[in-house]
Amino acid sequence: MSARRVSSRFPQLPLDSLVLDEAAGEPLYRQLYLQLRSLILEGSLSGGFRLPSTRKLATEHGISRNTVVAAYDQLEAEGLIEPRRGSQTCVRSQPEPPRSETAPMFDDFLSRRGALMLAETLRYVSQDDPQFGLLVPGAPDIRRFPFAKWRRLLNNRLLARKEDVFGYHDYGGYPPLRAAITRYLAASRGIRCEPDQIVVTTGAQAALDLLARLLVDPGDVVWMEDPSYPAAQAVFMAAGAVLQPLPVSPTGWDIRNPPRDRFRAAYVTPSCHCPYGTTMPFEQRDQLIALAHERNAWIIEDDFDAEYHLTRNTIPAMQAISADSRTIYVGTFSKTMFPSLRIGFMVMPPTIQRSISRATFLSSQYPSILLQAVLADFLDEGYFSTHLAEMRRLYRQRRGDFLRLGRRYLSEWLEPMESASGIQSLWFFRDQTMDDHEVVARMRANGLRGVPLSMHFRHIAPLRGLVLGFAGQDSNRAERALIRLRAILETCGPDCRVRGGGTPGAPTDDMTPGL
Amino acid sequence: MSARRVSSRFPQLPLDSLVLDEAAGEPLYRQLYLQLRSLILEGSLSGGFRLPSTRKLATEHGISRNTVVAAYDQLEAEGLIEPRRGSQTCVRSQPEPPRSETAPMFDDFLSRRGALMLAETLRYVSQDDPQFGLLVPGAPDIRRFPFAKWRRLLNNRLLARKEDVFGYHDYGGYPPLRAAITRYLAASRGIRCEPDQIVVTTGAQAALDLLARLLVDPGDVVWMEDPSYPAAQAVFMAAGAVLQPLPVSPTGWDIRNPPRDRFRAAYVTPSCHCPYGTTMPFEQRDQLIALAHERNAWIIEDDFDAEYHLTRNTIPAMQAISADSRTIYVGTFSKTMFPSLRIGFMVMPPTIQRSISRATFLSSQYPSILLQAVLADFLDEGYFSTHLAEMRRLYRQRRGDFLRLGRRYLSEWLEPMESASGIQSLWFFRDQTMDDHEVVARMRANGLRGVPLSMHFRHIAPLRGLVLGFAGQDSNRAERALIRLRAILETCGPDCRVRGGGTPGAPTDDMTPGL
Repeated sequence: MSARRVSSRFPQLPLDSLVLDEAAGEPLYRQLYLQLRSLILEGSLSGGFRLPSTRKLATEHGISRNTVVAAYDQLEAEGLIEPRRGSQTCVRSQPEPPRSETAPMFDDFLSRRGALMLAETLRYVSQDDPQFGLLVPGAPDIRRFPFAKWRRLLNNRLLARKEDVFGYHDYGGYPPLRAAITRYLAASRGIRCEPDQIVVTTGAQAALDLLARLLVDPGDVVWMEDPSYPAAQAVFMAAGAVLQPLPVSPTGWDIRNPPRDRFRAAYVTPSCHCPYGTTMPFEQRDQLIALAHERNAWIIEDDFDAEYHLTRNTIPAMQAISADSRTIYVGTFSKTMFPSLRIGFMVMPPTIQRSISRATFLSSQYPSILLQAVLADFLDEGYFSTHLAEMRRLYRQRRGDFLRLGRRYLSEWLEPMESASGIQSLWFFRDQTMDDHEVVARMRANGLRGVPLSMHFRHIAPLRGLVLGFAGQDSNRAERALIRLRAILETCGPDCRVRGGGTPGAPTDDMTPGL
Repeated sequence: MSARRVSSRFPQLPLDSLVLDEAAGEPLYRQLYLQLRSLILEGSLSGGFRLPSTRKLATEHGISRNTVVAAYDQLEAEGLIEPRRGSQTCVRSQPEPPRSETAPMFDDFLSRRGALMLAETLRYVSQDDPQFGLLVPGAPDIRRFPFAKWRRLLNNRLLARKEDVFGYHDYGGYPPLRAAITRYLAASRGIRCEPDQIVVTTGAQAALDLLARLLVDPGDVVWMEDPSYPAAQAVFMAAGAVLQPLPVSPTGWDIRNPPRDRFRAAYVTPSCHCPYGTTMPFEQRDQLIALAHERNAWIIEDDFDAEYHLTRNTIPAMQAISADSRTIYVGTFSKTMFPSLRIGFMVMPPTIQRSISRATFLSSQYPSILLQAVLADFLDEGYFSTHLAEMRRLYRQRRGDFLRLGRRYLSEWLEPMESASGIQSLWFFRDQTMDDHEVVARMRANGLRGVPLSMHFRHIAPLRGLVLGFAGQDSNRAERALIRLRAILETCGPDCRVRGGGTPGAPTDDMTPGL
């Protein structure tokens, strides 16, 4: 090897550790730069340390002076070294250690709206959550994603280096992706729309946040499924909405009592109710659409888990049957591709699209165009539907296994909602005084995830149970997780009971016919 | 070639076009699926068309029945075909053509807040803009980005397929990226912070939007540079803020008249003022920090174009010298990497970080973790600073050329702001009755971009001029663009003059000492 140690003729001791190797893949200047940088950032070369002149360092070690100049230039550009008088170059003093934090607590510092936004997220987001775990609801099995295909498409886009994929761009969404989404929606969801009706966002959550901000003023009524997806409740609350409950039971939606006054919007998950996993019948969709028309309100159709419906012939989306363009459809690729992709979308009338896509520029709630372009290719090449078809088969299998295994290990405490679609499974506590938040906390302490059913309720009396993900792990791992959950439930004594005896959540025949 | 045409023994004419080629890269089932799908989506096979049975199609053409079953399965999964009685398979009827839009115009439909958000974006965003063009302010030269290196790092991440990069995740930012950003900030901006003080967002705009929502209530005063970045004004307006001007002239910031009442926040671009490109002196930074402390207000430091400062020894960021953690720093990688990456970040006290990162979950204003991971690698490998150093050299050269060429072709009409940093160049009209909006409209019609200077002013009397990008094209293309701009200016007669004579924007000695 031609590794060359900078000799000890050179007086500054920390530099003795420099090793430059001509045979290495990195150019010599870069090797020198990286090693000097490490020495400075580690503190081995501290502020004020005088570096040898470029000429001296080059001569002493038989390397080109340009090599040393290039390394010094880069260190200087990074602010790590600085020229001094007389062609001296010194290590720059690094900033002081972090100051002790003197800011008061945040609740004094946030605006009222900020405090409200935080209070809403604190209802269901804990930053100390483990990031992964078994039984996570809503998690697809990313190990089964066809990364080789996706990587090939991504590389094609990177090699083509088209300006449209790397510059500033269409904030309503990359046009070929919008076109690909319209084709997908026509084929799979019965929605016939044009690309100029699509807005691409950083996930369904961003779409809901944008809609809440653009459609709802503080004090406006939003008619919202109860129970429903907590993060959807949160965005409307954060927008200042007054939520009124649209009661949903395991048997269906009760739309007989709409808000008396004007409501701006109704939020529903008709394909796969969150958390029950049920599907809204055609008749109720029609009634809701008629009601929204009469009341001049928006319907926000969150097409939650529609792709993982148990049967293939799902009812078309409400957007598809809504005659007067008052329905805005919200979808996501988080569960059909992979969650960290951060791409979702909305479908709406073209005039509204123009307004909302402008607003996405303001809030920057649109994803990297590069990833949008690769997703468009993935859809157009048919890989998406191949993958989705495979995952449907796989998850149907896993769902069956999970129900069987869950009954084997958990039936002393829990009973499943049988008819549910989606990629999670809902289990009701037989004893409705069980504190599902406490059980989930114990699960987390043991590496299991899960969501307490009661968290989804806002106004109506909560039912208690567990929402468990069956798609993210194979059935062997699921079985081990269920055995662990059984052990946890066995430790649950009176300290796992709801204070006050649980009467609010006491199930009635009407509410829990599936039990 | 082993291409095999499905023979005409088969009665349905549209299927005659099927060509299956065993030597092609695609499996036969996929060829069949893709071709049938095209026929259906094109309308060549319409709703109700009876497909041959899998057995029949397979037998007739000597392919395996499983091949046909696999193709049909996928078409069925996509909702394009459906089983009928008696093992018949038919093409499914596709949805109706788009309905005529019956929704009233959006201003009836948007909330008041939505209408405000839209009005603000309409001030400066036109969806009909060409996406690209010459002289775009703020555009880096993406052709010079080291895509080969970036692609290698991206492929490494894709091949590793680590769960943390593809699943649900840290919405405050991917931890290794937060760590890499702290190292970069320490070296280049004098900021010593910890990873738990960073929130990663989908660009600086998302950061400003989050801050406006979290820190400002409707009616709160925000003390805002005037002129300033229009999209920053827009997010505070959309949050309901009352903007009070912090006047900035080409010579400096006038902080002598802060708002009388409480103000929640001051928005400044101290490294490189938008649009003047000037740098706030150290003393004024100190005064502003003291004032914010006294008034219990936030400073939002948008470190606009700090990386492209003309001289290397920039003044440290205000966040670095702010003793009481009231300064929130906002940065972006849009101009140092490439715009469509959509990654920016904020630095703030840790308690605030915890609140704000939770809120990013609510609004989904965080970028794909995959891209965050690759950016972390790009920073850690030192490629970022190499690239930045090269671009600094390149843009310094281009800036010099641009000023020289601009003076050659435009000096009859325009005079440059000499001392400006950043990657755009500001030119004042000698005749301040010139309508810069009209000139920019004519430029757009001729393939040139540019931003009217007057658009940046909200309360104080506007100056008129052009903000032109010099970084996004080489000097030859810039010269051709400037020659075209000269031709446009030669056509500007009285119809390019501000109605009413332009007195509001008449420059005073105090305002335009650079002229």
